[in-house]
Order: sequence, then C-alpha cells, then structure tokens
Amino acid sequence: MDRRRVIIEGVQPEIDAGRFPIKRVVGDEVTVEADVFTDGHDLMTSRLLWRHEKQRSWRHAPMLPLGNDRWRGSFGVESLGRYRYCIEAWVDPFRTWRSDLDKRVAAMQDVGVDLQIGAAWLEQAAARARGRDAESLRRAAVTITDERVAQAERAAAALDRALSTLVSLYPDLSHATRYDIELEIVVDPARAQFSAWYEAFPRSMGEEGRHGTIADVEARLPYIHELGFDVLYLPPIHPIGTTKRKGRNNAETASADDVGSPWGIGGVEGGHKSVHAELGTIVDFEALVMSAGQYGIDVAMDIAFQVSPDHPYVQAHPEWFRARPDGTVQYAENPPKKYQDIYPFDFDSAEWRSLWEELETIFRFWIEKGVRIFRVDNPHTKPFPFWEWCITRIKQKYPDVLFLAEAFTTPRRMERLGKLGFSQSYTYFSWRNDKASLTEYMEQLVQTDVAEYLRPNFWPNTPDILTEYLQTGGRPAFMNRVILASMLSSNYGIYGPAYELLSHRPAKAGSEEYLDSEKYEIRSWDLEDNHSIARLIARLNEIRKENVALHTNHTLRFHRVAGGGRESEGQESEHIIAFSKASGGDRVRSLNPHGDTLGEPVVVDAPGSDANNVILVVVNMDVAATHHGWVAVDLAALGIDPSRPYILHDLLSDARYEWAGALNYVELNPHAVPAHVFRITQPETQAQRIDVDTES
Amino acid sequence: MDRRRVIIEGVQPEIDAGRFPIKRVVGDEVTVEADVFTDGHDLMTSRLLWRHEKQRSWRHAPMLPLGNDRWRGSFGVESLGRYRYCIEAWVDPFRTWRSDLDKRVAAMQDVGVDLQIGAAWLEQAAARARGRDAESLRRAAVTITDERVAQAERAAAALDRALSTLVSLYPDLSHATRYDIELEIVVDPARAQFSAWYEAFPRSMGEEGRHGTIADVEARLPYIHELGFDVLYLPPIHPIGTTKRKGRNNAETASADDVGSPWGIGGVEGGHKSVHAELGTIVDFEALVMSAGQYGIDVAMDIAFQVSPDHPYVQAHPEWFRARPDGTVQYAENPPKKYQDIYPFDFDSAEWRSLWEELETIFRFWIEKGVRIFRVDNPHTKPFPFWEWCITRIKQKYPDVLFLAEAFTTPRRMERLGKLGFSQSYTYFSWRNDKASLTEYMEQLVQTDVAEYLRPNFWPNTPDILTEYLQTGGRPAFMNRVILASMLSSNYGIYGPAYELLSHRPAKAGSEEYLDSEKYEIRSWDLEDNHSIARLIARLNEIRKENVALHTNHTLRFHRVAGGGRESEGQESEHIIAFSKASGGDRVRSLNPHGDTLGEPVVVDAPGSDANNVILVVVNMDVAATHHGWVAVDLAALGIDPSRPYILHDLLSDARYEWAGALNYVELNPHAVPAHVFRITQPETQAQRIDVDTES
Repeated sequence: MDRRRVIIEGVQPEIDAGRFPIKRVVGDEVTVEADVFTDGHDLMTSRLLWRHEKQRSWRHAPMLPLGNDRWRGSFGVESLGRYRYCIEAWVDPFRTWRSDLDKRVAAMQDVGVDLQIGAAWLEQAAARARGRDAESLRRAAVTITDERVAQAERAAAALDRALSTLVSLYPDLSHATRYDIELEIVVDPARAQFSAWYEAFPRSMGEEGRHGTIADVEARLPYIHELGFDVLYLPPIHPIGTTKRKGRNNAETASADDVGSPWGIGGVEGGHKSVHAELGTIVDFEALVMSAGQYGIDVAMDIAFQVSPDHPYVQAHPEWFRARPDGTVQYAENPPKKYQDIYPFDFDSAEWRSLWEELETIFRFWIEKGVRIFRVDNPHTKPFPFWEWCITRIKQKYPDVLFLAEAFTTPRRMERLGKLGFSQSYTYFSWRNDKASLTEYMEQLVQTDVAEYLRPNFWPNTPDILTEYLQTGGRPAFMNRVILASMLSSNYGIYGPAYELLSHRPAKAGSEEYLDSEKYEIRSWDLEDNHSIARLIARLNEIRKENVALHTNHTLRFHRVAGGGRESEGQESEHIIAFSKASGGDRVRSLNPHGDTLGEPVVVDAPGSDANNVILVVVNMDVAATHHGWVAVDLAALGIDPSRPYILHDLLSDARYEWAGALNYVELNPHAVPAHVFRITQPETQAQRIDVDTES
Repeated sequence: MDRRRVIIEGVQPEIDAGRFPIKRVVGDEVTVEADVFTDGHDLMTSRLLWRHEKQRSWRHAPMLPLGNDRWRGSFGVESLGRYRYCIEAWVDPFRTWRSDLDKRVAAMQDVGVDLQIGAAWLEQAAARARGRDAESLRRAAVTITDERVAQAERAAAALDRALSTLVSLYPDLSHATRYDIELEIVVDPARAQFSAWYEAFPRSMGEEGRHGTIADVEARLPYIHELGFDVLYLPPIHPIGTTKRKGRNNAETASADDVGSPWGIGGVEGGHKSVHAELGTIVDFEALVMSAGQYGIDVAMDIAFQVSPDHPYVQAHPEWFRARPDGTVQYAENPPKKYQDIYPFDFDSAEWRSLWEELETIFRFWIEKGVRIFRVDNPHTKPFPFWEWCITRIKQKYPDVLFLAEAFTTPRRMERLGKLGFSQSYTYFSWRNDKASLTEYMEQLVQTDVAEYLRPNFWPNTPDILTEYLQTGGRPAFMNRVILASMLSSNYGIYGPAYELLSHRPAKAGSEEYLDSEKYEIRSWDLEDNHSIARLIARLNEIRKENVALHTNHTLRFHRVAGGGRESEGQESEHIIAFSKASGGDRVRSLNPHGDTLGEPVVVDAPGSDANNVILVVVNMDVAATHHGWVAVDLAALGIDPSRPYILHDLLSDARYEWAGALNYVELNPHAVPAHVFRITQPETQAQRIDVDTES
C-alpha cells in the first residue's frame, strides 16, 4: 500500500530503463520530459533533479506542463564525468486551493469557509518554514481569516502572487513521488561531438618512398592543420610480426622487403606498448602528441586487440590463446578462410580476468603518454561486457578520454557498443549513396533514441573501404561524399591522402580494397597534385568551425525537393537532397513517445540572429548529370518569416541569393560543384539587405 | 566483470521495463521477440522460458532467428492467473564448430585437427548427459577421431543431424545469459477480449412506468439474449440518498416523486453492499445472476466509490471524508460548481488504509454473490496506487474477475489504468466520427504497446454521452456507429433501449446529456417500435460470434479507398472507410521496435480456409449522402491470391460479389444500409465457386 498519488512515467531521454547512460558534452543543455499526472483535478508541482556524480546533493529545476500530462525541464552540464538526473512531483494543495478560490471569487461566491481552509494550508507551510518566511506565512493565515476585514480584500490577499511564491518554497514532500530510476549522463569533452578526423599511414610520409617516421608525421602536421582537421588518426604504430606476414596486395607470402600490415601487431621487439623501430621511439611519439596539440590536433591511436604469432604475449601468456589439439595456437579464421598471421585472444579462456586486466593496461599506458582518443579495431569481435567494464573504468579516472568503435556489423551490435561506452561509432554512411537510403538512415541515427548514445562518425573511405561509388564516380563522387559526410554529421573523417588525391582503383573488380593498399606497402603521395580536392575539404572544415549549427546533429532536418527534368513535376526529386541544421529552435526529435500534439508551436529565432545559425545544404547525388528542382524550405522550422525575402549565402561559391517563400529553384552540375552550402539570414528591413546575385 | 557473452535486449512485449504485465486470455498464443546477439561469429542458441506463477519450474520453447539479430518464439497460455516469461541464450560451441566443419569439408580442407576439437565438445556434452545419451556422445567422440576410419567418413558422422540434436539436449549453461527481467502476463477469461455489453436501467423495466424490479430485469433477459449481448451492465442498484437529491433533468431540487440518481449511493437502508428496496433483495439479485448465466450473460455491476450524504459511512466513518472548518463534510466540487448530493472519499485521509480495505470488501461482497464483471465509475478520480493494490489482490483469489474502467480522461491516465490492472477500458471512440481521426485512433490503440495492456471497449452512447453525431445524424448515424463499434472492437457496448430505439434528443443544445435522462427518472420504452434497429444489432452480434476474426483486434488493418464523386480520382476517400480483420497470418503490429525489415514475408493462409477467417468491412461515414469509391484491398495481407477472383459474402445483406485484383468498386447509401460486412473466401477452383450477384 502506497498512498503517493502522483505518477511519473514515460521519461525521455531514458535508455533501456536507465540501464545505460545518455551522452552529452560539456556545456550542453539536457532537456528532460516525462508524463506526470495524478488522479482527479488537483494541481501538481514537478521538478527535475540533477547532480554530478561527485556532488552529494541534488540541484533542481522546474518542470513545466506542455499539455496532455507531458512536462519538460532542463539543466546544463558543465563538468566532465557522470551526472545523474531524476524527477520529483507532488500534489500541491495550496496551488489547487488557490486556483479554486480564483474561480469562486470570479463566480461571486461566499468564500468565508474557503479562506479558513486556505489559512490551514498556510499554517502548515509556516511549520515547514523558518525565520521571517514562517512569520510571513503565519501572518498571512491570520490576515485572510480576519473577520474584521472585508471578504473581498481578504480573498485578494490570499490570491497575492508573492504569497503563492513564498508557499512554493516550502512544499510538503512527505507524499511526493520520486521517479523509480536515477538516470545517468556521460559528459564528454566537446570533441566527442564535433570532430574532423584525418587518417594517414606514418610510414608513407617519408620522402621518396623512404619508410616514414614519427618525425615525418610531425612535419605533416601543418598540412593537416591547413586542411582543418582536428584529429589525426594513425594506424597501429607497434612492431609488426614477420611470421606468416602478408605481402603487397595481401599476397599469401611476403618478400623480404615487404613491410607487413600494421595490424599484425607484435614482434620480438615488443607488442602493444612498443613503437615500431623504423617509426621511432615512444619519446618521439610523445613529442608528436605535444606538437599536434599545439595545432589543436589530437592524435588518435589505433587499438587492435589481436597479435601476430611473434607477439611476446604468445610465449608469456599461452593461457590467453586457444590451443589446438596438435599443440599449435589457434589462428584467426572465417571458415574456410584462414588468417594464420593473426592470433585472436581467447576471451573464453579460464584466465579471462587477467586478459581483461592486461588489455586495460594498454589503454592506460598510452593515456599516460598523452593519448586521449582511441580508435578501436573490430570491437564487436570481443565480448561486449569487456568493453563496458574497460571503458567505464578508464573514464572514471580519465573522463576526457574518447573511444571510436570501428564496428561494421549489425545495427543492434553497433548500437550496443554505443550504449556501453564508445564515444563515437563508424556507421553505414559509406554505403548510403542514394537519397532514399541516406535519408532513412539519417532519421534512424538522429531522430530516434539511438541519438542519445551513438555518436555517428561518417567516413567516405577508409583503408578497408573504397566503395563502388568512389571507384566509378570520379571527382564529383569524391566532392559529394565529403560534403555529405562533413555537413550531415558533426563527426566525420577521411583516409588521406588517398581521399583528397581521388585514389579510386580497387585491388580487383568487385572488391572494396584499394589497389596497392597502404595496409601492405609504403605509398608515396604527391600532395601538390592539381587534382587534389584539398582546398574544398579545407573550406568545408572552415565552414564547420564557423557555423555552430554544424557542431551537432540533433537539428538535422530534410526538406522536400520537387524534381525537375524527366521526373514529373511536384514528385520528390530522386537526385537532389536538401537538409538543414539550425542552432536555434527546438530539437527536431520530439521527446514525446506518444505522438500526441503538445503545447504551442515552438518559436524559432530569426535565421542569422545570434541565437539561430541556419545552414541549408543542397546536394545533387547523381555524379553523372546536372539536375534541377524546387527546394520546399520548411520555413517555420528554420524561423524564416514567410512574408519577407531571405538571403542565402553560398559558403562554397561565395554567391548570394535572395529567396522568398517556401519553393525555390536550384540547379546543380556535379562536374562543377555538386552542392550549395547556404547560410541563411533574414534581414529585418529592406535597408539591412545586402546585394544579391541575380542568378544561380 | 562478467564474461557472459550473449546480449539480450529489445524484448517485446515488455511494458515499462517489466513494471506492468501484458494481458492475454486463456488459449492465446504469446509471441515474444528479442534482439539476441554476441560478439564475433559464434552461433548461439536462444530459448523462451515461461511458467504459470503457481508452477515452480520453467518450461521452454525454441526461439528462431528472423535476421538482423531479432529472434522470435511463442507459447500458449491455458490457465487463468499470472504467467511469467523470460529469455535465455548462450554461445553454442558445438553448433559453431559443426557449421565451420561443414564449410571446411565443402572446401576440401584437411579436418583432422578439427575432428579432434569436435570430439572434445562431445566429451563435454557427455559429461553433462546421463545414461545412454552420455554413452552415445562418448562413442561419437571416439568414432570421429578413429584414425583407422577415412576422414570423409568421420566428418560425415560428425555432421550427422541426430548427433547434433543429441548434443543440443545437454547445453552448457554455465555462461548462459538470462534476460534481466522476468516479464509477466495476466491471463483473463475469453470474455475479457470478446464481449458485447448492454447497459440498461432496471427501474425502467417495469410495465407502464411502474418502478422496475430485479424480477423485471430477469424478464428482459430473453430480449437481451436475442439481441446477442453477453454482458448486461446495470447502473448502481444500491439505496439512493434523499438529501440534496437532484430532480428530473438534473434539477437543483427534487420533487417528492423523483427517484434520484442511482449514483447518489447510500441511504438509511444501507450503502454499497445493499440493494435498493424498490428493486428487490440481494437474494433476487443472486437469482438474476444465475438466470443470466443460463443465457450465457454475465451481469456487470457498477462500482462508484462515492456516497450520498445519507450513506451509513458518513456517520460511521467521518475519518474517510474531509471535514470543512464549519463542521460540515466536504461535498464534491468542480469550482465554481458544487455537487452537494455527493461526498467523495478523502483518499488523503490519515485513515486511508482502512478506507482502501473497506472499498476492497465491496468487490469481494458482490463477487461472493456471483458477480464476475465490474464497471468502475470514474476510476481516474481515485488514486492510481489504490487500483493496482485492489485489483491485484482480488485477481489473486479470483483470476476470472474483470474490471471495466470508465475513465474519460487524458490518454496517459487511461493507459495507466489499463497498465495497473483494469481488464477493459472505455475509449474516445464515441467522438471519433470522421475517417481520419478514427483511423489514427485505432492505430494508436491496436498497433502500439497500448494494445498489450489496454483492451478498448467501444460505446456509441452511454447515459452520459449522446454525441452530436447521434443527435443530428438520424437512423444512418445509429446504424453507422454500432456497425463500427461492433466490427472495429472485439469489446463493445450500447446503452439501451435508448440506442436501438434511436433516442437522440439532448437535454439542451450543445449538451451531450439525454433529455429526460434515465439517470434522474424512470423511462418507459416501446421495444416493439418499428424504428428499432434491434434486428441490425442482433445480426451484428451473430456475425461477431460466427467469425473468429472479430474476436480480437490485433489483426485490424485499414485499406485505402480511392474516392469517387466530387473528390479527385485516386485521392483517398474522405467518407468511405474500409478495414479488415483476419484470423490467419501475422499480427499487424510488428513487435520489432527498430523498423528494420526482417526475415521472409509472412505466408498467410487462403481466406475462407479453416485457418483464415477474413472479414472486410466497408462503411460510408457520411450520414447525409451516398458515396462511391474503389477499395484497394491489401491482398497479400489477407492471403488472397491476386491471380484468381475471390468471393465477398455480405453478411448484412446476404448478397455475394466476385472481385478480382486489388481495386474494387463500392457504393453505399446511408439511408439503406451504410456498410458492407464481407466475409471473404477464395475458392481453389472454378468449380468450387458459388453463384454470385452481378451488381451491388
């Protein structure tokens, strides 16, 4: 039996009944909604509780009703680490009584008895208050029941707003309902949410095909910085095994001068805590991390939990590997394929505890050398509970450390890795090359609960992924995909210089492997090649930095585009995609799981105001042909006044256009620039307008 | 640290992380889905566990993969009361090994070492098995490693299906994952899901205006039975208070011969456990319950937890009411309105525990008199925790007792009452009189989680609700609404004889109250009136009983209707609504919360086969004019072969039509019969076809 009358349910955000935290970055506002209601007609008060895990006491913020029993409140998160939040609500007899009194007075009823009832509520509040407040409440109780004073005057005193506020400071919480679950937030550094990654092989950075060194990487920093990237991700820099080493183009056997795959980790010189001798030393690496930091660049380290047969672990810890009945160690397999150059760890080993502990020390080792970002290779082939344990422990001590999950697997597994702690995740973006599938995928990532725990990182290419679209689409495809990646997702990356130099030859037809892949050999790249799209990429990264709308994904919204050309008029264009991000206004994703219409429409600040940075991107996804169409801009969503024209500044071409109303013409030639990246402003008056170009 | 590698999540059905049970009826199949996956490529086995709460040990059923990590299993519930279900899954090394072996053999690899590995798995299974099975497993281990036998022969023995099945009987569960939550099911009698209610005032059943008695109700049973109803719901039958009694048409003061409202419960003669003297005695009532039972009719009792000022509780238990400062008892109010004839209970009373306990005894009292169905008046104005406590306790002892929640309040409150135990719920159906809002509402009720715990009961009218649609729509409106109620919802009811006699005059313009409402006076009804639509209603109830498709809601599906007339061709018709229910095939509601496409399309049995009773209802919702249109039948969903014609038998008119393909013409005149209720069959061959009418 429990007489608490308020029900709190339908809390959002909430992942798997609070089993997993949501993710935010420092400085974020956390908006929480819930269904809060009670029986009958009594009024309630509801508030949001929150605290950093290191604080003992809750802070609270008011929740306001949106209609249909839905309430909303919010608070800011200012520190790294874990926060908790909860909701508390109670039946509020004084507010109920006051609201009823108001109606009785309006109906000119005798309220003598009602004032006596109210005085009792005031006395009770006084008993909970102290000092002057208690005195004021007691005095009010006397005043409103003083028969010598006219009833109308006493009623007015009882309805006084200041009195109401005073009472609200001393609520009776003895029958308040506290939501069953304390929900959690992991607060990361801003880079978790907004980052531009550049992946490159150190050994290819030497001059004229010489094996590159960490010093060469340092020399490459100005280039990477000019391109505007802020994370430099290096494939494994550890010693590489020689036993069963693969040759160029993944040949079965290596020749003497083959350098091997950096993912074949471990040789006689050492394993995951060593640096490959030809690259340099740990001291060199620490220096690189420092230098990169001066450019605002984080060095991301690759963590691949697998070993070559030459890794010291194989001798020192045979218990961490599976023994075959013939006495050999079980190599990696995907039957009937065998990968005899790689030994996987046996997580089912009886000694799994010591294995987990050792693996965690690898992260700690590099954290102590200054690394703050790890790109984890194939985390979905290691037990999920390991990652939750490992990441949680590390972030307890180092809440600024970030983990990118390189898991190309089923949606539920990718989502699970996000839930249990990975800060960012690779996605299927690379293969979403048509408008319909890209739109659908973005909605899944951005407009569902997934957005609370999985931060997408969009890669048009990786050393393992040269998509058919890039193989065959030429320069337009490369421009397209990097524009989409950088504008759709606040986290994105490329594998360069292969990307900016439009490297597009596959190892063989039907394969997504690069020909002469850097995974198996040293490549020399001509960064000055005049086919390079480095300038476009640099401009995209500049636009990203200058426009806060692009620093998050949660305002992403697709706009309809009526097709032109052979398509029938008014039909959705198959080729032209249009989407916006806007820093002002509400998140696109409704937190309300019930699909009811709630409250008033959101008022959005005018675009171009300080509060509302608005970016509209229009891309022709057909690499072969020019297409035109009419973008149906969702004006209300972007805060655009439909009665006045608005200005679109194309941040790629620097052209300016004036549009009016929702439907506007666009035409995009993939061989020139296949996209507009517009910043939208709407001047208040004619005088404030700038000159605009007359044609696209 | 926890090395269990299988993850189980996304379980459906699951209400609020298992906080509330789902609802089923005896004989139902319970289908459960979950996301089940592990790291890497190992195969898993997953099974569904279930048991009745009175059974100690779990039973289990296999779960099968649907693709994309989604698994499904099902079991039947045969007994009343609570069941529990859970999911268990584990990495299955033998199945993984066997599958790999298959690939290796196909690739003609040497599998000598692999057979040794498999033998070890067999030895382990043998250690878990007993008797002959253990022996067989050990023998198999020896056989497949017997070097004297050819490898191909040994591999074939290892791949033997029977061996695989034998191993699967002895799984290694030491690292199995059990889903965190044991989920619950409340299993009710079939009537909870399929019922036709008839509400009528006993006191109006007397001859020529004489105060009716329980004996008169008994005399009315054949009529109600002929109409096909199986629940007879009586407004309160308790003594009625006289203090501040309301007169006819809710007049402020009653005259001496006014009978008062049955909801003004309690007089000097007694309260909630007494029968109004003019109606008869408790013994009469028990006899009525018995007689009704012989007609297959349940008598549903009205439970209204409120009292008249004359109720014995007021004197005996002043602590259950709120005292006003002037010494009077607080009456019901909705400021500035006052209802001085009614005292609400004070659930915030210090004596709330004794109040709850007393109220529960009211249910028990009538249960002991034979009542099995309660219609609860305004449950949303009593604390939610009270209902959960009360209903749970009662159903522990009497799992066959049902509760209908009469809560016309916000969606979340109505849903909460369903979650915490009410067996059926009144809905907004009465006011969903246009196609768009009705369709949207049905989708919310039937295709969301709400369907798991809230069983809708559709009422076109009640003594409190005479909608404007019925006031103004004439006979077509009355036909329309009862057809929709009875066909859309497996539970429905009418307030009669007002309904079948088309009573439609409101107390005043803009009011939904009846003129000369039976709530305040005795009415005399001419059941033989030739405007009565009793025959239509009887036919509808007959159709419901004969067609199992109509016994549930979960297969409800709307079909598009292209409009005719002034509407542009091909546009969705505003007036003609078409929907189906089909006993065969899958539930319309996908259990998969992720929106992925899963598995193979469902194969639906042919309509008209034993396994697939298919009903297609087409209604013209415009009471004023004839409309025509083209119904776009979703053939695949109903199991109709698009290459052959199918037969539609109109169960209302007895006409038969032959349709072919998806698009078919309909035309409905609201003044004749505004609906088709088709049973669809598709004969296998021409010879099996019956003669069909040529035109509608």
